[in-house]
Amino acid sequence: MMIGKPGAARTAISTADPRSITIRGYDLASELIGAVSFTEFFFLHVTGKRPTENQRFFLDALLVTIAEHGLTPTVQTARMTLAAAPDALQGAVAAGILGCGSVVLGTAEYCAVLLRQAAARTAGKPDAERDRVVLEMTREIKDRGERLPGFGHPLHKPADPRTERLLALADQRGASGVHVDLLRRFARAAATVWGKPLVLNVSGPIAAVLLDLDFPDAAIKGIPILARTAGIIGHLAEERETPIGFLLAAKAEEAIDHSAAKIRGGKA
Amino acid sequence: MMIGKPGAARTAISTADPRSITIRGYDLASELIGAVSFTEFFFLHVTGKRPTENQRFFLDALLVTIAEHGLTPTVQTARMTLAAAPDALQGAVAAGILGCGSVVLGTAEYCAVLLRQAAARTAGKPDAERDRVVLEMTREIKDRGERLPGFGHPLHKPADPRTERLLALADQRGASGVHVDLLRRFARAAATVWGKPLVLNVSGPIAAVLLDLDFPDAAIKGIPILARTAGIIGHLAEERETPIGFLLAAKAEEAIDHSAAKIRGGKA
Amino acid sequence: MMIGKPGAARTAISTADPRSITIRGYDLASELIGAVSFTEFFFLHVTGKRPTENQRFFLDALLVTIAEHGLTPTVQTARMTLAAAPDALQGAVAAGILGCGSVVLGTAEYCAVLLRQAAARTAGKPDAERDRVVLEMTREIKDRGERLPGFGHPLHKPADPRTERLLALADQRGASGVHVDLLRRFARAAATVWGKPLVLNVSGPIAAVLLDLDFPDAAIKGIPILARTAGIIGHLAEERETPIGFLLAAKAEEAIDHSAAKIRGGKA
Amino acid sequence: MMIGKPGAARTAISTADPRSITIRGYDLASELIGAVSFTEFFFLHVTGKRPTENQRFFLDALLVTIAEHGLTPTVQTARMTLAAAPDALQGAVAAGILGCGSVVLGTAEYCAVLLRQAAARTAGKPDAERDRVVLEMTREIKDRGERLPGFGHPLHKPADPRTERLLALADQRGASGVHVDLLRRFARAAATVWGKPLVLNVSGPIAAVLLDLDFPDAAIKGIPILARTAGIIGHLAEERETPIGFLLAAKAEEAIDHSAAKIRGGKA
Repeated sequence: MMIGKPGAARTAISTADPRSITIRGYDLASELIGAVSFTEFFFLHVTGKRPTENQRFFLDALLVTIAEHGLTPTVQTARMTLAAAPDALQGAVAAGILGCGSVVLGTAEYCAVLLRQAAARTAGKPDAERDRVVLEMTREIKDRGERLPGFGHPLHKPADPRTERLLALADQRGASGVHVDLLRRFARAAATVWGKPLVLNVSGPIAAVLLDLDFPDAAIKGIPILARTAGIIGHLAEERETPIGFLLAAKAEEAIDHSAAKIRGGKA
Repeated sequence: MMIGKPGAARTAISTADPRSITIRGYDLASELIGAVSFTEFFFLHVTGKRPTENQRFFLDALLVTIAEHGLTPTVQTARMTLAAAPDALQGAVAAGILGCGSVVLGTAEYCAVLLRQAAARTAGKPDAERDRVVLEMTREIKDRGERLPGFGHPLHKPADPRTERLLALADQRGASGVHVDLLRRFARAAATVWGKPLVLNVSGPIAAVLLDLDFPDAAIKGIPILARTAGIIGHLAEERETPIGFLLAAKAEEAIDHSAAKIRGGKA
Repeated sequence: MMIGKPGAARTAISTADPRSITIRGYDLASELIGAVSFTEFFFLHVTGKRPTENQRFFLDALLVTIAEHGLTPTVQTARMTLAAAPDALQGAVAAGILGCGSVVLGTAEYCAVLLRQAAARTAGKPDAERDRVVLEMTREIKDRGERLPGFGHPLHKPADPRTERLLALADQRGASGVHVDLLRRFARAAATVWGKPLVLNVSGPIAAVLLDLDFPDAAIKGIPILARTAGIIGHLAEERETPIGFLLAAKAEEAIDHSAAKIRGGKA
Repeated sequence: MMIGKPGAARTAISTADPRSITIRGYDLASELIGAVSFTEFFFLHVTGKRPTENQRFFLDALLVTIAEHGLTPTVQTARMTLAAAPDALQGAVAAGILGCGSVVLGTAEYCAVLLRQAAARTAGKPDAERDRVVLEMTREIKDRGERLPGFGHPLHKPADPRTERLLALADQRGASGVHVDLLRRFARAAATVWGKPLVLNVSGPIAAVLLDLDFPDAAIKGIPILARTAGIIGHLAEERETPIGFLLAAKAEEAIDHSAAKIRGGKA
């Protein structure tokens, strides 16, 4: 049973024979192992091209930026799962990754869509017109009752230290292009529209820098996922030494009122 | 409800306040972003220490070695899952990772256990005694009808090109220690015990090099998982452009005889 | 760090003390175990109410309908994952469930949205007006280049036998209401708009019957997931006896042209 | 690439053509939908046989018994994952299922192994000899520093109300056989060996009843997984109405001391 119409039955990523493995046209053993970093390999694997120096630098910087942020829901999920199923490390990692969704780690993707739309609508336009378009887009989002992707953070105020660092690096290394510029216009527009500055969270520069450096769209959500996988593995190594998974669950449970469960037809 | 006895309610990985994030004692924004590679960050995150040059080099080399090996079950699983649920990239990655199990990507861990046992039993012993112990351990494994962890490969014959490259690099860079030495003794013992050379697959040098470079045990299975996550993300980016997920399922299904399902009490 | 604004810290599902467990106001040991079927329990758990006879009957019927459809991508994914990680049954089940997405098993949810919209737009309207609204909605969907949720099947032609059976049962048992009626109007409208009859697949009656029987929206996607979990477990029991997981992967891989991977910058 | 040796390329579960679906020799539309309950279907799917009345009754009873036990780690994991990724219900269910591991829901499987071993060692032996063998097995387990599978519970004391109910039902309905008998001998032996009565938790009667009713081994771990899937879906429906996922994570995080993260080389 073929679901949908079959397309080309082809892959361009790798092929192997008894004596060799070829990835994106490179011999794995002689040209990649020991010759490229894991980050360079990831770029080659996803895009089919070797990274430029700035692409490599910022891919490393972005992965480092979002790999770790404490006992987030993704990390708690992974640690509780390892406590319950200690023999299956892969299951605990998978459970953690499943929390990289639209609310928690996926906003970089929505921010990228916003920046691409703004870029399309302002291409070749003068400076003032760019500000006008961005202000209009920001107003429309607020009027629809939506949140502006890339803005707001539950902890970091008045600024997200990661955002400031990434934007400073992008400027220093000549990597800031049209998308970083538009992101800053959105920050100013948000302050006008909401009547106060909003915190530009880390999803903003992730999206803007990736777009300015020609990363493919399909990789944008992959980057937080790969980064967080590394962070989850570190937490799981700690969980094996100093288990807190069940303690997290016990403390969380205590905070919830269960009394409605005593009543037939009760509501939470 | 606390499952088991609560231990120390502590984590040493990271902490954050409104203006900063500290990871393993380093300020994320000023000391890590743009200053360390993703691989160096991963080492620091998992171990709490900065890597030596050889630890960094081989961690990169091992991650590159096992990130990709074609349309493996893990990759097919991820691509089929994305075809069925295209909105949830994290779900497709998680499905792929769930296949990093004891049969497919987890053998490095078993190989590490074997090498640690051999190291404990041969510590301080002369050369001939080491060979004798390894030969005895190999015989016991064969006599129990088990496979020797780290040996055998469905495709690569007479040698796994990745293994040869990793061992050559370990020798060149002075990283080969007691575990690499024992691994080679197991290769010779296997040829004696099985009466023919067995292919030393990539799990062998992964385990041996990690042990010789003092990687913590808890990280050993994490390394194939992180590496494969990168490979899966690349395949999912390709799946979005050139979908083959449902085609893989259709071709696989055609190869299976379903006729026993017509019979009540039929057996596969 | 609290993500978002905290709401009520309450659950109404269950509570326990050393001597009892209470679920939705019922004592588990004395009032539910041995007293209600699993299907009745599931209804009570999700809705907080005991099912009527028709709610129980159709919940059973729908779960039976969609639990199994051969070596689907979800089942292949689960079987490959068990082959790779045989010690973690839960991981193989989870991998299978991750394929219950918007394309494969999630269309009942979209169909429910469509039927709810049609119900809102035709409430209290005469028969001819209902047909007119449904025809207009169908035309709009086709004009947007979209598929009509609940229609089309890769295998079943000219009709899906499960659909026919469910609709016949709904009529026989007096369960067909406004949503089943609208579903049939969509079938007629689809034939007009596409110029040929479209197969009404099983997602249509699942959505229509559930809505006519007052199932909560949140349960609609849960039903295919629970049903398919049962089917996956059966396949995994067979996989342990008669393994085909790696064979499926091998046959699928053979069908794909890997030659572009030999070329730097090659495309699939 | 074929991993391992290919076995028979066969399945006996289901087959389909354009006009029908056949499952285990039964026509799905005319013989199963509306004719069997979901529980009966599950039994048929997994075993290839129709259940006896007691097999159906106890499969329902066991599924009801273990579907729900409050805000367990599996449920918290599922609810946090839905909060983070609300568009992917399947991901939240999968994350929850991944916690059905060896510590939390998998002990029924270990208990089954213990009961099978005891049955093999006492077959045809007189009563006193049975007690002697069970006592000896219990002592060996305690001497190895292991826990006795099926005994101990973090909340239920002095008895697990579910256990008592299941054993009473097994006696009433004539379903108690050799494995239920051996389970009771283990309870007495445990009191002797540990010097105090141990709580017989629900995994004990799950294993014993399933074995006495000839359920296949492969289904034993599948039963808690299927049951818990139903429970998770109910919690996710509540999470959509009354979200507590992020609140659980915030409360849990507050309970953990993060100060060691400020120190380079700090330990948890």
